[in-house]
Amino acid sequence: MPLSPDQRKEIEDLRAQTQPTLRATVPGMEAHLYKAHEVLDHGFIRVIDYMGDDSAITQAARVSYGKGTKSVQNDEGLIRYLMRHWHSTPFEMCEIKLHVKLPVFVARQWIRHRTANVNEYSARYSILDREFYIPAADDLAAQSVVNNQGRGESLSGEEAERVLRYLRDDATRAYDHYEEMISQDDQQGLARELARMNLPANIYTQWYWKVDLHNLFHFLRLRADAHAQYEIRVYADAICEVVKDWVPAAYGAFEDYRLGGAQLSGKAVECVKRMIAGEKVTQETSGMSKGEWREFEGVIG
Amino acid sequence: MPLSPDQRKEIEDLRAQTQPTLRATVPGMEAHLYKAHEVLDHGFIRVIDYMGDDSAITQAARVSYGKGTKSVQNDEGLIRYLMRHWHSTPFEMCEIKLHVKLPVFVARQWIRHRTANVNEYSARYSILDREFYIPAADDLAAQSVVNNQGRGESLSGEEAERVLRYLRDDATRAYDHYEEMISQDDQQGLARELARMNLPANIYTQWYWKVDLHNLFHFLRLRADAHAQYEIRVYADAICEVVKDWVPAAYGAFEDYRLGGAQLSGKAVECVKRMIAGEKVTQETSGMSKGEWREFEGVIG
Amino acid sequence: MPLSPDQRKEIEDLRAQTQPTLRATVPGMEAHLYKAHEVLDHGFIRVIDYMGDDSAITQAARVSYGKGTKSVQNDEGLIRYLMRHWHSTPFEMCEIKLHVKLPVFVARQWIRHRTANVNEYSARYSILDREFYIPAADDLAAQSVVNNQGRGESLSGEEAERVLRYLRDDATRAYDHYEEMISQDDQQGLARELARMNLPANIYTQWYWKVDLHNLFHFLRLRADAHAQYEIRVYADAICEVVKDWVPAAYGAFEDYRLGGAQLSGKAVECVKRMIAGEKVTQETSGMSKGEWREFEGVIG
Amino acid sequence: MPLSPDQRKEIEDLRAQTQPTLRATVPGMEAHLYKAHEVLDHGFIRVIDYMGDDSAITQAARVSYGKGTKSVQNDEGLIRYLMRHWHSTPFEMCEIKLHVKLPVFVARQWIRHRTANVNEYSARYSILDREFYIPAADDLAAQSVVNNQGRGESLSGEEAERVLRYLRDDATRAYDHYEEMISQDDQQGLARELARMNLPANIYTQWYWKVDLHNLFHFLRLRADAHAQYEIRVYADAICEVVKDWVPAAYGAFEDYRLGGAQLSGKAVECVKRMIAGEKVTQETSGMSKGEWREFEGVIG
Repeated sequence: MPLSPDQRKEIEDLRAQTQPTLRATVPGMEAHLYKAHEVLDHGFIRVIDYMGDDSAITQAARVSYGKGTKSVQNDEGLIRYLMRHWHSTPFEMCEIKLHVKLPVFVARQWIRHRTANVNEYSARYSILDREFYIPAADDLAAQSVVNNQGRGESLSGEEAERVLRYLRDDATRAYDHYEEMISQDDQQGLARELARMNLPANIYTQWYWKVDLHNLFHFLRLRADAHAQYEIRVYADAICEVVKDWVPAAYGAFEDYRLGGAQLSGKAVECVKRMIAGEKVTQETSGMSKGEWREFEGVIG
Repeated sequence: MPLSPDQRKEIEDLRAQTQPTLRATVPGMEAHLYKAHEVLDHGFIRVIDYMGDDSAITQAARVSYGKGTKSVQNDEGLIRYLMRHWHSTPFEMCEIKLHVKLPVFVARQWIRHRTANVNEYSARYSILDREFYIPAADDLAAQSVVNNQGRGESLSGEEAERVLRYLRDDATRAYDHYEEMISQDDQQGLARELARMNLPANIYTQWYWKVDLHNLFHFLRLRADAHAQYEIRVYADAICEVVKDWVPAAYGAFEDYRLGGAQLSGKAVECVKRMIAGEKVTQETSGMSKGEWREFEGVIG
Repeated sequence: MPLSPDQRKEIEDLRAQTQPTLRATVPGMEAHLYKAHEVLDHGFIRVIDYMGDDSAITQAARVSYGKGTKSVQNDEGLIRYLMRHWHSTPFEMCEIKLHVKLPVFVARQWIRHRTANVNEYSARYSILDREFYIPAADDLAAQSVVNNQGRGESLSGEEAERVLRYLRDDATRAYDHYEEMISQDDQQGLARELARMNLPANIYTQWYWKVDLHNLFHFLRLRADAHAQYEIRVYADAICEVVKDWVPAAYGAFEDYRLGGAQLSGKAVECVKRMIAGEKVTQETSGMSKGEWREFEGVIG
Repeated sequence: MPLSPDQRKEIEDLRAQTQPTLRATVPGMEAHLYKAHEVLDHGFIRVIDYMGDDSAITQAARVSYGKGTKSVQNDEGLIRYLMRHWHSTPFEMCEIKLHVKLPVFVARQWIRHRTANVNEYSARYSILDREFYIPAADDLAAQSVVNNQGRGESLSGEEAERVLRYLRDDATRAYDHYEEMISQDDQQGLARELARMNLPANIYTQWYWKVDLHNLFHFLRLRADAHAQYEIRVYADAICEVVKDWVPAAYGAFEDYRLGGAQLSGKAVECVKRMIAGEKVTQETSGMSKGEWREFEGVIG
């Protein structure tokens, strides 16, 4: 359970204070504001603020004076056109701010997306909570045998139990020592900025993360993908659910052109043409490497 | 007069539609929303949207669950501390979107600030309006004689008149030819993307410009400065008036530490110490170059 | 002829001074260094510096200690894999610095690519040269009738002549007045930062532009594309020739996956599958809009 | 000892292969190339590549055709002027690429500087080495009592011993379990991307980090500062030594204006003026808060 009663109370208080505004407002996002969407065993994402809606995208594209909406159909058509042709700046006109609680090893992947604003909980100033990500038994995957990045089958039996025991015990011991080292009872107490180095990468941290819609889509394309590590993908999936309510037309275009689409090389396009013309093409006659051909079959198979 | 009756009508319509929201809301900014603040002879800035307030800055700094406000005094003190110590990420948590109408030569300076999102009116797709910046007589400055970047006295008499006549006539003729070249009456009509090359740099363009508060402060520090060209400084000044209403504590800290403050070199700090101790320091004994000394005198003189 | 005899002399001098270095060095780029590749009537691109080669990409991908090269074939396979899977950071490890002379209206498009470093010739400090882009007769295109961004047939006869006369005469007059306004003979002389506003968008400017390979590929994908305006495309094409000599494996992958490839939507992938299975698919049965279908036919037709 | 014999051999081989180049070359940097400068107990920084020199900064500022050097004195004066007036783009014309080996908790601070290119060793693909940062006894600092971010005195006696024992034992145990969990001897073997979560934040990682000189100076200003955590400051200090050899004029200006200088608020400037005029100013009469006054005294005291 990621939230304490105090935190639940604070969220309720925030959700009780409505203000009038002249800004673009999305009812579906108002319903999300401040609420915690639970992810993994102790994590969450919460929408803290947002700017813009589907109309803000077309308004920017048209640089018009008014809200830029001609008709819903027109707007959706324009948004799909912009997405198809890799226009990025109109999507940058929408902005979202999330509060995220996540394990440190997930945070380390996430932060590689540099075009965003981040304020992370500081373990130099503050004391981290005793909260660690311990995978559910089903998510204890073995190393993949076909791919050196990724997972295979779930571990089973004794091996799974042993892994869980190690993860739990090592985290507990490390945190006990962390607490003991920073304690100022009858001793000087180690500086927090040093003591934190004993903590494992499955400890939870949290941050405020603010990003524009274009860069968010880029993040989601890579992190909501089947090749992404499961523990970050569940965050990306939770964010997808929010974005769907925020900018439904843009999200629809993103789903069709990015998540659901495929990038073909020049060689692949040639193969497609030959196959449509009725030719039987194999890897040997495709001009592609084995790896490329396997991925190509994944697309058109 | 920068706005047509239709545009005024649209603004009024937008200002008539209030929505309830749970987001952080600033009454002073609600009063600005959509309104055109006139700048130069045909330009303006308009606030189209904003995200966050002073509390969003301290909230991010504290990564707290709630709104982050302990007391107004505490918040202001924290914001001043953050500004003094060059913390940038908390200020990045606020975002503003402006609609700006400005001469092309001003836009060319402005766009050098790269950490912002921009959608400019497209002269490939669309036809530019017949609107040119013609300086007021008082703003027709001569080249500075002490500084090869910048202005001296205003031009006077015949010379001023001749300059204004050239600017007006050349703009008029260039636009007449632009219109004639793109016309499709009894001719093919030159592509807009080509015809625009005949237009001078004082023609007005417009764009949506979205930026976070940290980068906006950086822009304002350079462009609201006395060394900035007058024609961009008036835009920066107009934006300062808006920011003051948006995040008063952050703006106050910015004014004190950036606009009103000074950066001293190590050498200058040494001189200050000697002067406070009663020593008479001159450029010759300061270790500074003439240029540095002149600027140093400007600070402490 | 874009270069003066003095400039040619300087380039020769620079090319005469060889230094020993331990850095990664590309003979093909050494052959380009400092030389001006002419573009349009007075423009050019010149390679001023570069960092890295194909091996720097794989070295970063492997974060190895040495040069990262196992064998040429392996490296090329890895580079293709990285390009196919949208890995961006290894390509960011290569950097290039160009000196570019280009018309202002081209510079205005170019600068919209924000992830690059730019130093432009300053018309506040300095006096611009009397050099304007005047299109060759064949490049005087009419506005497209099918597409409101873009060009149709070339203008012909009297219309073409009139356009060229306007462009030449207006530029000449604007520059005569620019010179006269800033002159300090028997008058104060208008500030350069003001006088420049009279100059049209086909005047040439110049800048140093430094960019990493990932962002350069993004620029080239959009600007070497058939939909880009001709006057920027010729710059992109000239840069492509240089990149081919700099990082041949990366450029080859870029050509196959980006320039020569295609992005299919989820709907388009479904259509391809049906067509390969022998079904006759039309726009009506595709689920695509007319615009999407037209573009889809362009890919597979 | 951070390097294995194989790694030393590779560095020697790289340093044995000189190539001729026409690019700007800095002998002081050639002497650094590839060599490991040791930092902390197992870390290092190595220069892998560089672009530009002091002249590249002035060349960009002047956008000249040649190397931009008029005389050394002029160049140095111009560089100091650019630094003093916060010009950033000329400094962006120089670029450096480092290979860095560093503890994960240092890497987490470092990566917050987003305007740089990074490729980190992947613990999804690869197995991390058994190397942990264990502070020297003198660097085992207690939590500061005046400042909740930072350190006080060193721990002593039994407390210090206990801390070191915890750090060593917990790291050893965590790594033993990491190895055991990923082992495929008689078991499936946990995926690497999961097993890494058991490893503490003092384990070493490594990356290639590429950054331009402007952003590097920003990093160094914050991280070579007395307020920075010791464990990142030693990296910043090691980089300072390299930059001094790379761009001596720019580094000198940086030292004087940034590292050795001070930023005064408007209020502080007023106090300085009064003090120079002979007035005795106290915190009470300064208009500053206690915190600001304490820092002000630190500058002028």
